[in-house]
Amino acid sequence: MIVDQAVYRDGKRMHCGDLSDELELLRRRGEGFIWIGLKDPTDAEFALVNDELQLHPLAVEDAVKGNQRPKLEVYDGSLFIVLKTLRYVEATSDIETGEVMLFVGDQFVVTVRRGEANPLAGVRSGLEHSPEHLEHGPLAVAYSVIDSIVDNYTVIDTELEEDLDRIERQVFSGSREVHAPSIYNLKREVLEFKRASVPLAEPLRRLAEDEELPGMKDEARPFFRDISDHLLRVNDHAESYDRLLTDVLNAHLAQISVQQNDDMRRISAWVAMAAVPTMIAGIYGMNFDNMPELHYHYGYFIVLGVMAVACLGLYRAFRRSGWL
Amino acid sequence: MIVDQAVYRDGKRMHCGDLSDELELLRRRGEGFIWIGLKDPTDAEFALVNDELQLHPLAVEDAVKGNQRPKLEVYDGSLFIVLKTLRYVEATSDIETGEVMLFVGDQFVVTVRRGEANPLAGVRSGLEHSPEHLEHGPLAVAYSVIDSIVDNYTVIDTELEEDLDRIERQVFSGSREVHAPSIYNLKREVLEFKRASVPLAEPLRRLAEDEELPGMKDEARPFFRDISDHLLRVNDHAESYDRLLTDVLNAHLAQISVQQNDDMRRISAWVAMAAVPTMIAGIYGMNFDNMPELHYHYGYFIVLGVMAVACLGLYRAFRRSGWL
Amino acid sequence: MIVDQAVYRDGKRMHCGDLSDELELLRRRGEGFIWIGLKDPTDAEFALVNDELQLHPLAVEDAVKGNQRPKLEVYDGSLFIVLKTLRYVEATSDIETGEVMLFVGDQFVVTVRRGEANPLAGVRSGLEHSPEHLEHGPLAVAYSVIDSIVDNYTVIDTELEEDLDRIERQVFSGSREVHAPSIYNLKREVLEFKRASVPLAEPLRRLAEDEELPGMKDEARPFFRDISDHLLRVNDHAESYDRLLTDVLNAHLAQISVQQNDDMRRISAWVAMAAVPTMIAGIYGMNFDNMPELHYHYGYFIVLGVMAVACLGLYRAFRRSGWL
Amino acid sequence: MIVDQAVYRDGKRMHCGDLSDELELLRRRGEGFIWIGLKDPTDAEFALVNDELQLHPLAVEDAVKGNQRPKLEVYDGSLFIVLKTLRYVEATSDIETGEVMLFVGDQFVVTVRRGEANPLAGVRSGLEHSPEHLEHGPLAVAYSVIDSIVDNYTVIDTELEEDLDRIERQVFSGSREVHAPSIYNLKREVLEFKRASVPLAEPLRRLAEDEELPGMKDEARPFFRDISDHLLRVNDHAESYDRLLTDVLNAHLAQISVQQNDDMRRISAWVAMAAVPTMIAGIYGMNFDNMPELHYHYGYFIVLGVMAVACLGLYRAFRRSGWL
Amino acid sequence: MIVDQAVYRDGKRMHCGDLSDELELLRRRGEGFIWIGLKDPTDAEFALVNDELQLHPLAVEDAVKGNQRPKLEVYDGSLFIVLKTLRYVEATSDIETGEVMLFVGDQFVVTVRRGEANPLAGVRSGLEHSPEHLEHGPLAVAYSVIDSIVDNYTVIDTELEEDLDRIERQVFSGSREVHAPSIYNLKREVLEFKRASVPLAEPLRRLAEDEELPGMKDEARPFFRDISDHLLRVNDHAESYDRLLTDVLNAHLAQISVQQNDDMRRISAWVAMAAVPTMIAGIYGMNFDNMPELHYHYGYFIVLGVMAVACLGLYRAFRRSGWL
Ligand SMILES: [Mg+2]
Ligand SMILES: [Mg+2]
Ligand SMILES: [Mg+2]
Ligand SMILES: [Mg+2]
Ligand SMILES: [Mg+2]
Ligand SMILES: [Mg+2]
Ligand SMILES: [Mg+2]
Ligand SMILES: [Mg+2]
Ligand SMILES: [Mg+2]
Ligand SMILES: [Mg+2]
Ligand SMILES: [Mg+2]
Ligand SMILES: [Mg+2]
Ligand SMILES: [Mg+2]
Ligand SMILES: [Mg+2]
Ligand SMILES: [Mg+2]
Ligand SMILES: [Mg+2]
Ligand SMILES: [Mg+2]
Ligand SMILES: [Mg+2]
Ligand SMILES: [Mg+2]
Ligand SMILES: [Mg+2]
Ligand SMILES: [Mg+2]
Ligand SMILES: [Mg+2]
Ligand SMILES: [Mg+2]
Ligand SMILES: [Mg+2]
Ligand SMILES: [Mg+2]
Ligand SMILES: [Mg+2]
Ligand SMILES: [Mg+2]
Ligand SMILES: [Mg+2]
Ligand SMILES: [Mg+2]
Ligand SMILES: [Mg+2]
Ligand SMILES: [Mg+2]
Repeated sequence: MIVDQAVYRDGKRMHCGDLSDELELLRRRGEGFIWIGLKDPTDAEFALVNDELQLHPLAVEDAVKGNQRPKLEVYDGSLFIVLKTLRYVEATSDIETGEVMLFVGDQFVVTVRRGEANPLAGVRSGLEHSPEHLEHGPLAVAYSVIDSIVDNYTVIDTELEEDLDRIERQVFSGSREVHAPSIYNLKREVLEFKRASVPLAEPLRRLAEDEELPGMKDEARPFFRDISDHLLRVNDHAESYDRLLTDVLNAHLAQISVQQNDDMRRISAWVAMAAVPTMIAGIYGMNFDNMPELHYHYGYFIVLGVMAVACLGLYRAFRRSGWL
Repeated sequence: MIVDQAVYRDGKRMHCGDLSDELELLRRRGEGFIWIGLKDPTDAEFALVNDELQLHPLAVEDAVKGNQRPKLEVYDGSLFIVLKTLRYVEATSDIETGEVMLFVGDQFVVTVRRGEANPLAGVRSGLEHSPEHLEHGPLAVAYSVIDSIVDNYTVIDTELEEDLDRIERQVFSGSREVHAPSIYNLKREVLEFKRASVPLAEPLRRLAEDEELPGMKDEARPFFRDISDHLLRVNDHAESYDRLLTDVLNAHLAQISVQQNDDMRRISAWVAMAAVPTMIAGIYGMNFDNMPELHYHYGYFIVLGVMAVACLGLYRAFRRSGWL
Repeated sequence: MIVDQAVYRDGKRMHCGDLSDELELLRRRGEGFIWIGLKDPTDAEFALVNDELQLHPLAVEDAVKGNQRPKLEVYDGSLFIVLKTLRYVEATSDIETGEVMLFVGDQFVVTVRRGEANPLAGVRSGLEHSPEHLEHGPLAVAYSVIDSIVDNYTVIDTELEEDLDRIERQVFSGSREVHAPSIYNLKREVLEFKRASVPLAEPLRRLAEDEELPGMKDEARPFFRDISDHLLRVNDHAESYDRLLTDVLNAHLAQISVQQNDDMRRISAWVAMAAVPTMIAGIYGMNFDNMPELHYHYGYFIVLGVMAVACLGLYRAFRRSGWL
Repeated sequence: MIVDQAVYRDGKRMHCGDLSDELELLRRRGEGFIWIGLKDPTDAEFALVNDELQLHPLAVEDAVKGNQRPKLEVYDGSLFIVLKTLRYVEATSDIETGEVMLFVGDQFVVTVRRGEANPLAGVRSGLEHSPEHLEHGPLAVAYSVIDSIVDNYTVIDTELEEDLDRIERQVFSGSREVHAPSIYNLKREVLEFKRASVPLAEPLRRLAEDEELPGMKDEARPFFRDISDHLLRVNDHAESYDRLLTDVLNAHLAQISVQQNDDMRRISAWVAMAAVPTMIAGIYGMNFDNMPELHYHYGYFIVLGVMAVACLGLYRAFRRSGWL
Repeated sequence: MIVDQAVYRDGKRMHCGDLSDELELLRRRGEGFIWIGLKDPTDAEFALVNDELQLHPLAVEDAVKGNQRPKLEVYDGSLFIVLKTLRYVEATSDIETGEVMLFVGDQFVVTVRRGEANPLAGVRSGLEHSPEHLEHGPLAVAYSVIDSIVDNYTVIDTELEEDLDRIERQVFSGSREVHAPSIYNLKREVLEFKRASVPLAEPLRRLAEDEELPGMKDEARPFFRDISDHLLRVNDHAESYDRLLTDVLNAHLAQISVQQNDDMRRISAWVAMAAVPTMIAGIYGMNFDNMPELHYHYGYFIVLGVMAVACLGLYRAFRRSGWL
């Protein structure tokens, strides 16, 4: 689906008529560019665009098939950039991964979006309100798209941190629930996050440093390095969430195991305490003819007393060794 | 066994007569190439081919002995490439490893296949239907073979992901089975997968970047980089399956241990509850002459009541502390 | 908030009047520099400074938003440095992270501070007492600030080591407390520490080695390498605390589990010992008509003796196998 | 001990007379070389050889002291190579490490062997049967020695794999033995293996690539790269055995713990079942005057029935919850 | 404290008079050097030396403060080297860390020693007995000092290996002691060892390879590479001790847990066996009027037999399932 397409000249949006006419006009003038926004394009829709722009077949294959790794390719003077978009679903603490692909030529930029996350929503209107940025051409669009996606990573980074904090609080609150599955789930989401953000570091490094990227101007590099920087920060965080989750799992297992063993010890101690009077009662329940104690007037009460004293003694001993 | 051999000129297949005559003809014309397909060749069969093509003895040794690491070697102007083929056996979730070796000269390509997996099946016929690819010569054949093998990696990647998902569901379903062996088995298959795919990254990087590979043209490089890209993606995935399997094992052990301890606690609590009436009954089973309670008219019923109340009290206390 | 601002010429502090007048004067003379100290500046406060110094917008954005990664950027001939400051709260063994940012031009230096830690307190007054350092200009200020921050890292390094030592003592003292949460907490603080100190290694390496840093003189490099050195040492330590904490956790869990199992074994052994007399007593409590032992004159006492002997035998056996 | 020494010219073995005469002769002719084989040489024995060949003192020190790391050194135009030899003792699954050192000059090669493993046994006789290899001089000897040692690594690699397979089968067979010590032992042997093979990668890489090795010809390089390749394969394997052993240990512990807890649960369930009739019997063993049930004609049989029903009910409940 | 100082010319020791006179004399002659040995110098003592030699203030700061990372710095044509010395205390298996610093100029060498370990004891006298080494000047002294320190690392490496072996023997001997604390302690010492030896690799590599070190001659490089080699070997070992200790801890915990659970199972099995006669006895202890068995003449003996048979049956069943 073609979401939107427009021609931009001097930072101002113009109507975009027939694609091939507009492209010829742009080439003749040598300034301005066309920006085409696609969403989940079919082969046919993409063919319409590609007929005019003559994109590299490998880039086209990637754009149509989707599900690529974040990367940056240079094909005959134009850039092809793949980014992963992330969406955080609060209810389930689930991260969903989408994709944005950018074809950046000297007089055109094509954005292809896949998946539910819509990080491009505000980018076009934002840029149309700041013509001084749009004037810099297709790479300014690429910058805005990437910046918006990476800014969103930092938002999700915060969500993950919150989820980790919540799990830590639950685990260390002393409650008796088992949190292993939710720790594992969070670890899985952190991994999904890292799968999107970690491989983007290299393309961003090249945008900031590679001397041979077509169309890149030196004064634009610090802007890409700035994004690169924010990316490295979230990557650092993700790495530490990953490691902390392993540690929190171990600490959690320790606590559960200790609690359960504690309960068992307590129950066993009570059983042990009951075993003593039972044994004594058993002895005086024997039917021997000659058991002198049985005929003592206070024999029964003395034995009751002995039982009580034994239990109390055991109770104290168990208290003292921390078993009760 | 020689599976198939043919001469290709202008992208079209021609009959291949006597090997040495055909090679001489090709060399004289300076265009076209011969493609020989071998499967588990014996020394003698390989010698026939080698007598004409004069391959490097080390490459020949590797091809005859098999069981090599994925790699790329340049010997006197021709390439020698080793790849691992993988086959996924659905019934047992087992990965089986085979091998494909490629000798790529300027006017010949020899493919040697070992093991059950047959990733070359469709490659020759596929290429014969697209003469525009075959025209590019032996390296186009190499590209198609490697592309087909790596595409198959992505298929197996999906199978592994499914197996991991299934294990996760089983582990977190709360069932009481022990899944440690199947987790370990899957880990072993993931390792077998990585052993095939991870070392291929370097040969593919060289095919995409190395300036000194004989016969490589610049416009072919992006195609090899494209494969390289897909390979990196499956390598990423395999790495994360590996780590997740460790985590899932830990979480699984936690759950089993918690469940079992829970059961023990429950059984012990019931035993503890039975111990109280037993103890009381023991006391009133004693044979002392003077036990006034025994002569109360409702003594027996009162004691039964006391027992019931004690058990109920214990039951409530155990419920409250979550032991029952 | 502007904390302090002054002009320094020949290593001596001078009053700083209107900012733009002072800057023009400095530029005309070609020597001396201005040092502006800010704390948690608002956009408006920062704009006042920026109007005169024309800092790069990306650096300004970082300074106003805060929460950056340690880094070093070169923007049009001036340096922008971000550092994390750390504060150790003795009572809670908590590390708190703040931030210091430095804009270092050839005739100005701006320090921006965020967070509670105040590592710059003594730096300005210290420098004002050693004019021979101040003479070297803005980079001497940068050196002093970074040196002071990294010196503080070594102080906190010591605190962390003390905390680790304390935990080790507690864990290996044989007490029955569970220390998993405090081990985890310390690990978290170590990670916070590493998040501040590890990424600073690269900026310091560049200050010591990068040939193209504006304003850097060769004789200043060893001083930055000296800081770099101290940083590497604390990074080494932090890494080893991290690993030791994992090991101490494992050793701790081992001990707790062993202790608890020990207790259970002891309780069970006592219960087992009580079971024997109970069983014997039960036998002689049976009501068969014909039980000859019951009529032996010393039957009761013999049975008591048998019980005692059995218990003693068990006790000895349990002692011998280490169960009691 | 001097094991063997001979002069080789044109690939043919000749008798070796007085060492210094032979060396002078070789130098005058400018072709042929001498090959001296030593085993555990004493200082004196080594001095005899060294007097003539003037080896570098550091290499001599290493050769006499032994126990070095695998490495390659270039001393004044001659190579000094250290390799670890491995021997697998089937009975104990133990790996034993020995050492081979090579001094490779342009007209001499000295091989020094330490330890029981004898990987050089077949090398000399093998070379003497293929004069076309021997013609290439001292480096051909070095190649054969290294090739033979690394070939032996692949043999041991297979043994280790077998041992791992055996342990896996034992662990997952469901038997009740504890295999932790043998898992640990195998891990130790794998580490001994890695200590020999992993550091050899760098010397082999240099033999295959370093442009400045004295005496190395370009056509010899692929042969050393071939060994390097085989080495990388065994190194990969060793690494994965190492990791799998950790996993197998964890899975093993899981199984043992589960089995033992299972047993405990089963025993406790039986004890719980016996507790119910014991309790009921206790009640009707009480000596109250007024216990109407005692006088029912079928009271005893009814109670026996109640006991049986209770036990059966418990048995069924335990079966249903998987405790029995 | 100045431990010793002397002038060396032509490899021979000469008396050293007033420091500044001697230095002037040495400079005029252009040969010979002075060697000053300090131990835990105070600021004042160091100032005396520094006044004459004009060392770099950062090196001086490090030497006076101590507690540096192993490193190599070049300051205006002279080298500053920091090494960690280690001492192994047999009684407590404790490693103690000291420090040696070297200032190496073209006509002076200053050695500064801190801590109890005294690795320099034999170095000066050793060198004075081999004038052919001393002739090479200050770097020969540096070589001897570093060689002696690294040789000592290999001694301690052996001690650590012995300690690891001892722990392994204890753990796998089947004894019932808990070794977790001593495993942890050894791990800590291994880490202390690595903290001293691992960072020394880089300085030694530079001494062996860096083309720009002042005063270094090419024929001296192999000697430093030789030390570097020995260092790499002990680093390898330390790394493997570290990993083995983790594995031995896991295997140890496994064994303890298995042993304890085994004990519990055994005790519980005995308790279960006693529960059966107790239950039967309880039944025949009931006071029903109509219990025909009680009046059988051999009833009592039959029941005793039934009890014995039941116990024996249970005993056999428990034996068969490996519970006893
Ligand atoms: Mg959330
Ligand atoms: Mg998700
Ligand atoms: Mg941003
Ligand atoms: Mg949230
Ligand atoms: Mg920024
Ligand atoms: Mg930004
Ligand atoms: Mg499957
Ligand atoms: Mg398989
Ligand atoms: Mg493909
Ligand atoms: Mg499937
Ligand atoms: Mg692609
Ligand atoms: Mg493709
Ligand atoms: Mg503290
Ligand atoms: Mg904190
Ligand atoms: Mg400092
Ligand atoms: Mg300092
Ligand atoms: Mg403190
Ligand atoms: Mg320094
Ligand atoms: Mg074996
Ligand atoms: Mg061994
Ligand atoms: Mg070989
Ligand atoms: Mg075998
Ligand atoms: Mg080979
Ligand atoms: Mg070979
Ligand atoms: Mg310092
Ligand atoms: Mg010792
Ligand atoms: Mg120590
Ligand atoms: Mg040495
Ligand atoms: Mg030496
Ligand atoms: Mg010792
Ligand atoms: Mg040596």
